Amino acid sequence: MTEPRTLTVDLGARSYPIIVGRDLVAGGFDIAPFLSGGACLVVSNETVAPLYMDPVVRLLGDRDVHTLQLPDGESFKTMATAQTVIDELVRMGANRDATLIALGGGVVGDITGFAAACYMRGVSFIQIPTTLLAQVDSSVGGKTGVNHEGGKNLIGAFHQPKLVLIDTATLSSLPDREFSAGLAEVIKHGAMSDAEYFSWLEKNMQALLQHDDVALAEAIFRSCEIKAAVVAEDERESGKRALLNFGHTFGHAIENSLGYGEWLHGEAVAVGMLMAAKLSDLSDKQQSRLRSLIQTAGLPIDPPPIGSEQLRKAMNLDKKASASALRFVLLSALGEAFVTSEYSEVLLSRILGSADA
Amino acid sequence: MTEPRTLTVDLGARSYPIIVGRDLVAGGFDIAPFLSGGACLVVSNETVAPLYMDPVVRLLGDRDVHTLQLPDGESFKTMATAQTVIDELVRMGANRDATLIALGGGVVGDITGFAAACYMRGVSFIQIPTTLLAQVDSSVGGKTGVNHEGGKNLIGAFHQPKLVLIDTATLSSLPDREFSAGLAEVIKHGAMSDAEYFSWLEKNMQALLQHDDVALAEAIFRSCEIKAAVVAEDERESGKRALLNFGHTFGHAIENSLGYGEWLHGEAVAVGMLMAAKLSDLSDKQQSRLRSLIQTAGLPIDPPPIGSEQLRKAMNLDKKASASALRFVLLSALGEAFVTSEYSEVLLSRILGSADA
Repeated sequence: MTEPRTLTVDLGARSYPIIVGRDLVAGGFDIAPFLSGGACLVVSNETVAPLYMDPVVRLLGDRDVHTLQLPDGESFKTMATAQTVIDELVRMGANRDATLIALGGGVVGDITGFAAACYMRGVSFIQIPTTLLAQVDSSVGGKTGVNHEGGKNLIGAFHQPKLVLIDTATLSSLPDREFSAGLAEVIKHGAMSDAEYFSWLEKNMQALLQHDDVALAEAIFRSCEIKAAVVAEDERESGKRALLNFGHTFGHAIENSLGYGEWLHGEAVAVGMLMAAKLSDLSDKQQSRLRSLIQTAGLPIDPPPIGSEQLRKAMNLDKKASASALRFVLLSALGEAFVTSEYSEVLLSRILGSADA
Repeated sequence: MTEPRTLTVDLGARSYPIIVGRDLVAGGFDIAPFLSGGACLVVSNETVAPLYMDPVVRLLGDRDVHTLQLPDGESFKTMATAQTVIDELVRMGANRDATLIALGGGVVGDITGFAAACYMRGVSFIQIPTTLLAQVDSSVGGKTGVNHEGGKNLIGAFHQPKLVLIDTATLSSLPDREFSAGLAEVIKHGAMSDAEYFSWLEKNMQALLQHDDVALAEAIFRSCEIKAAVVAEDERESGKRALLNFGHTFGHAIENSLGYGEWLHGEAVAVGMLMAAKLSDLSDKQQSRLRSLIQTAGLPIDPPPIGSEQLRKAMNLDKKASASALRFVLLSALGEAFVTSEYSEVLLSRILGSADA
């Protein structure tokens, strides 16, 4: 266990630390100060549990510890799965002083956090994210929830964890494709709000791809810092937090059109960022830097051939307000994003045209 | 429409008014300042909707208004019913600026509030309670949720409404038995925290039973004041809010043992208050005043013959922490309640014995 680094998500009484380091789980990190005193339920999935459930249970010592394995995959991010977590809490006789521990990727974290938000109107939970995407994005900021047939994340709650424990060692078991998908959000953080970080990523992308410990810890820490700062300023996404959706208007439309699961979320966001960059008033050189970095990270740079009409339909569906214009997060420069509903319709049509077969 | 009275539930940025008056709905109360700007969904049940849905829809003017009728009864206070509300919001294409309006009793309010808490991680909602119980208790304070097979209100959220609109005229359609059940919570407010109010209730119980407008408005207003003050001090029930559970430890055990729906909640709480009073160090005279007031209100004073063993089992189940002692809200005097886990086991056994056939 190397000396971990800590940053705080500053939300008054609901503030909590994000702790980043290697071998925190296997090395016996002292989790006790973050538990509420009652029973613990560690929720994981069938892929992650065989790898890390035992050491996490060991961290919890001689408490009343229960475990639950969910099926693996976004298609199980449903109310029905959240109810299996709640059913287990009921079966345990868990009280308000229970603590849920989410051990896995974004799906496990979102479901577990939502169950924690709803059980007895809110019990504690801890995030131990094991994918890069969850470590730099979904485990931070308190967004929890499940999907509805009518759309992603339509059912959920803002419920902040007591601790986000990021053990970079867990990334060794992550498939390359998923690792790259996580890098899409890392690149997003640089592109939307930190030009210096973007340059750092350009220099260190190879090291990241080789899972270099120092580079990994640095990227995760800086990405979490950026996200934590945005969340502290706008917890419930009434303003600035929307900037984190850079690449997501196009990205969601791609995911929705392909059917969720065909492309990974990060892959769709990668292409979405490039489409948003094209819609921005961004120099060719900066666009080209963004494209290169995305490509180097092992991510797609062109939309799948789903057709421009389908893409536009999916974008209109996503915004759910048929009367008003689409809203995009665009860049004025690398590192500077803004939200707007003013854009060139001609340019948008040309960009969507890149999805025509 | 008589001049309504307003009190504020003081919760900082989440503060909201409770407005009490006669004919507010039929009289065209100006609800516009409390709407979020998007679509409205009025949720009611098959009993209440035929009586008040039309005038409520008229209050909403030419907005995008949808309505939904739920089946009537506590047995429908389930996640499945909450999902039908969410399904309707999805079907409407409702956005974050939607407002849900709960028109009905506590069940409609709890389900609608929970759906509002979860849809897109939280949209606005308004309570228009139409039962006395909902007007003086469940519509105030932001507790929302549904039942689980394993227990009542196990799934839920704290989600404060933007407005509680109490129209005393809606009580004219309430069956006498339900009116009396609501009076149980009114009596509870006096008994737990306001001796003067308790005396006022003794003097005015006949007027209340005759639905005297002035007396009704006064009782509802004072009960809401008491509840609002407790909620403002302890929104999430980490302390003082527990005092509102006076009579509920025994009451829940009665409901649970009989099967929910057999006795009304208020009826079980009425008997529960008398059992808690017996466990308290309360003078015979004060106990007798409480019994008289409860009896005058048309409520039961003796537990059903379900057996002391069953009652104790249900109480142990309710607290969900097998190792620790039971906790009760007891009275040191009429108007003064406190929480304790110190009580006479001999006395408790004798009190439970009153449920032996």
